Amino acid sequence: MDKILRIDMGAADGPKTSESPLGDYAGLGGRAMTSTIVSKEVPPLCHPLGEDNKLVISPGLLSGTAAVVSGRLSVGCKSPLTGGIKEANSGGQGAQVLARLGYAAIVLEGKPKDDTLYKVLINADGVTIAEASDLKMLGNYDLVEKMKAAHGDKITCISIGPAGEMKMSAASIAITDMEVRPTRHAGRGGVGAVMGTKGVKVIVLDDAGMKMRAPKDPDKFKAANKEFADGLKKNPVTGQGLPAFGTNVLTNVINEAGGYPTHNFSTGQFDGASKISGEALAELETARGGLATHGCHRGCIIKCSGVYNDKDGNYLTKQPEYETVWAHGGNCGIDDLDVIAQLDRMDDDFGLDTIEMGAAIGVAMDAGLAKFGDGEAAINLLKEVGRGTPLGRILGNGAAVTGRVFAVERVPVVKGQAMPAYDPRTVQGIGVTYATTPMGADHTSGYAVATNIMKVGGDVDPLKPEGQAELSRNLQIATAAIDSTGMCLFIAFAILDQPETFQALIDMLNGFYGLSMTGDDVAELGKSVLKKERDFNERAGFTAKHDRLPEFFKKIPLAPHNITFQVTDEELDTVHNY
Amino acid sequence: MDKILRIDMGAADGPKTSESPLGDYAGLGGRAMTSTIVSKEVPPLCHPLGEDNKLVISPGLLSGTAAVVSGRLSVGCKSPLTGGIKEANSGGQGAQVLARLGYAAIVLEGKPKDDTLYKVLINADGVTIAEASDLKMLGNYDLVEKMKAAHGDKITCISIGPAGEMKMSAASIAITDMEVRPTRHAGRGGVGAVMGTKGVKVIVLDDAGMKMRAPKDPDKFKAANKEFADGLKKNPVTGQGLPAFGTNVLTNVINEAGGYPTHNFSTGQFDGASKISGEALAELETARGGLATHGCHRGCIIKCSGVYNDKDGNYLTKQPEYETVWAHGGNCGIDDLDVIAQLDRMDDDFGLDTIEMGAAIGVAMDAGLAKFGDGEAAINLLKEVGRGTPLGRILGNGAAVTGRVFAVERVPVVKGQAMPAYDPRTVQGIGVTYATTPMGADHTSGYAVATNIMKVGGDVDPLKPEGQAELSRNLQIATAAIDSTGMCLFIAFAILDQPETFQALIDMLNGFYGLSMTGDDVAELGKSVLKKERDFNERAGFTAKHDRLPEFFKKIPLAPHNITFQVTDEELDTVHNY
Repeated sequence: MDKILRIDMGAADGPKTSESPLGDYAGLGGRAMTSTIVSKEVPPLCHPLGEDNKLVISPGLLSGTAAVVSGRLSVGCKSPLTGGIKEANSGGQGAQVLARLGYAAIVLEGKPKDDTLYKVLINADGVTIAEASDLKMLGNYDLVEKMKAAHGDKITCISIGPAGEMKMSAASIAITDMEVRPTRHAGRGGVGAVMGTKGVKVIVLDDAGMKMRAPKDPDKFKAANKEFADGLKKNPVTGQGLPAFGTNVLTNVINEAGGYPTHNFSTGQFDGASKISGEALAELETARGGLATHGCHRGCIIKCSGVYNDKDGNYLTKQPEYETVWAHGGNCGIDDLDVIAQLDRMDDDFGLDTIEMGAAIGVAMDAGLAKFGDGEAAINLLKEVGRGTPLGRILGNGAAVTGRVFAVERVPVVKGQAMPAYDPRTVQGIGVTYATTPMGADHTSGYAVATNIMKVGGDVDPLKPEGQAELSRNLQIATAAIDSTGMCLFIAFAILDQPETFQALIDMLNGFYGLSMTGDDVAELGKSVLKKERDFNERAGFTAKHDRLPEFFKKIPLAPHNITFQVTDEELDTVHNY
Repeated sequence: MDKILRIDMGAADGPKTSESPLGDYAGLGGRAMTSTIVSKEVPPLCHPLGEDNKLVISPGLLSGTAAVVSGRLSVGCKSPLTGGIKEANSGGQGAQVLARLGYAAIVLEGKPKDDTLYKVLINADGVTIAEASDLKMLGNYDLVEKMKAAHGDKITCISIGPAGEMKMSAASIAITDMEVRPTRHAGRGGVGAVMGTKGVKVIVLDDAGMKMRAPKDPDKFKAANKEFADGLKKNPVTGQGLPAFGTNVLTNVINEAGGYPTHNFSTGQFDGASKISGEALAELETARGGLATHGCHRGCIIKCSGVYNDKDGNYLTKQPEYETVWAHGGNCGIDDLDVIAQLDRMDDDFGLDTIEMGAAIGVAMDAGLAKFGDGEAAINLLKEVGRGTPLGRILGNGAAVTGRVFAVERVPVVKGQAMPAYDPRTVQGIGVTYATTPMGADHTSGYAVATNIMKVGGDVDPLKPEGQAELSRNLQIATAAIDSTGMCLFIAFAILDQPETFQALIDMLNGFYGLSMTGDDVAELGKSVLKKERDFNERAGFTAKHDRLPEFFKKIPLAPHNITFQVTDEELDTVHNY
């Protein structure tokens, strides 16, 4: 992981590759790498679908090593959805394999002169780029099958579906999992559309013949890794809750807290919640011969995922995440797991962010295009997206565009990106993160739900404004650092409450790189990433006025607590004081 | 014109009217009135379609008097198209009649709880508001006929068509002309959508029994008015060019200058220009028994409009303006005046901004939805807008949304508003205005074309960056003042080059109001209006980064001069130094 691969897709004679040492980018990985390159090299006022935007794909600092749960891959660019900087990250095999192939980053630059589509193959022999217009408009599932037929079943694919080719702002980038299925996605912010503009349908990775990355201090690294793994196993969330029920364990929790955005954020509890809860999902998966516990990449010991089979016991999709179950479920009034799983499969196949699509369909339902609760109508709306009809293109460009086109007032977005599965009126800390993260509304940027609801890392009353700005600040800083390590964000549940597990993470980094970092250094890394991101956004025209929730959260109380978002603008403006 | 009428459309028991003296708003009219009220009373971060937005309708300071060409009506709000402050203004009878009825402004506030539609009648007896759901989705032409049948043919209507009811961001507000036809429009920025949210389909004005407004110093006013009228008549543009050929006299002029944006701003000259020029238009109108010279309101002595009859000699539409002929013509590659006139009629009937719609269709053509030059396809696209299909709603929300949905890179907008009929690469002064006016791309905010191309008010080379910032600054200041007087902006051709005509305008204001203003005071008025507008936009999140043209104008040279927009960001940032 000591080199950067650049592919100029706009070169006169077709795509041109070049490799360089890390140079100024040494010591960076994951989000620190993508945000640094984007911030330094992409003109902030460029058109996100234009030749000046760059797509940066980077494994984390510990990816490709023996470190557990280190398989997160960061994808960065100027976002077509928000107009600001974007880092979307994903599980799956991508980070591990790319890191073992030696790349700290792939940078896709320029733009082909015509609509030729390309395939990039990276293996131990190097990089090969071939025209692949026969792949046009293939769904991710068919595409991956084709790639397996051509390159064997040990590959990892990083690909776009039709949504990315159509350059929709909700288009994701799919990363294959251990079973070489395109189930993991760098979902948010339209990164798939940027890959689409570069004319790259798929990057096929094959690490045959490559070795696991070797630490500088093997003993220290090994010991720290063991300590770290033990910490994850003993933690009740990462050791028990997530393995047993997956992320969807949250449905009942958030619904009971009254923070489950229902019918496009019009109320805070959903009657059908128990039918689509993590408990119900795990039971159904098991009964149908699927899996309720399953990891998305080699080295995962949390195993929060699963396998969802259809009624006949055939594979349909991976276990839909909590946010997906919410987006296509309660947010749209749908309480049928088969419908939700079908929508998840379609999103993965078309290459779409499930959160953005669920939010867009919810807004469309609010506009009267379908009734809340009508699963068949939701499936038909999503089919329109896959076909690229005018209606499908509206939805495929996300909730904000859908709201604009259909003149809906209640549009739950910040910086043009749809809000995930936690109402900021009932979970005020996450509202602060939605408002102030450089990413647009994003729960993963500073997951205050942990402290507000699960009482991890402290206890801040979710219904009150006090302490939320500080909470979000600390979490945003920690998250920016974790997102740079390649570690799954779920480690936060353990490291926030178990100082020895946090120390083990630092020891792993120190053991691997031969460093002597402290906890403060990790925080400084997080701050430096956020500063670069905010600097980019400022140069792109963002101000404090964009660090705000839509006004309806401040005006319309949410049942059952009947409260509005109470954190003041002045408090929001203190979040990035560090 | 000594009172303000407020109508709270959201009051519990139905619309509630109240009248108040001018108070803090004394001495204001037109744009100064609308921008001051919006800036002071509308929360900058409110949803433009929400209850907190206000629609302000205000005649100019000299409207309703004997002053010639004083019939401009200003309409202000937070724009659904740009998200910033908006003043759109219009000719027609509205300003004169409203001023004679004594109102300096009508302010529509709040929002009905349901989708009931209302009609507002204002006459010598006062204000009456009635439910009028039978008017739902009527085109402006049918609506006005119904109003004439109900209230006589001496009325003036201020109304919205289906586009306004559907709250499209390109929706206009129609104002009837001397023949009580809905041909004049406050077109830009989606003001019609805001009227739609207020549930007001039409405001019917009847000034029977009301008198012309009386000046404080009748002799001074009368003499100044005569001097002013003489100045307009002797000026070659206002006295000859505009009356003979209308605004469309510019087609040949701008095309010859190489600044005629063709095929969605991809080249600067249009092969079919001569077929749709002002000269060709006037000849056709005369041959078909229409009119090549015609005023849009009583008191107009420029008479830049006309009447366009169809092939059978029946009225089809008013003479389409230059910008309309360009938007639906050269910009879409269409060189058939009958097609353009048909599109103009449809825009007026649906209640749509012709510039925004032509630009949106041009972008759609660039996306491959129709071929450049296909008039029938353009008509069909516009029919979709009237029907409110998903495709129609995309287009009806303007060029920026159309570009976003169809992933087009070349989208000629600033602050979300489509650029009019002058390419900023060839007419660099107007590019400065597009970039820096608080209104979004708008030629009327500082018409540098006059000085760049027609050499009115000086001579600044249109192809060079030098002097453009200063030119635009001075024109934006003068325009903000003129837009507050109720005077037609075309007086600028005369007052820029004829100091005695400018002095006559000041004398008219002084004679009417008993003041002793100087030219400097007029400039101060303009500056104060701009400052309020920019302050609103700043509070809505706009920065210098939004005072920029899309990057393609800086990157892609325009034929035939093969130049890019050369004015630097630093120069743009000096425009509002005053």
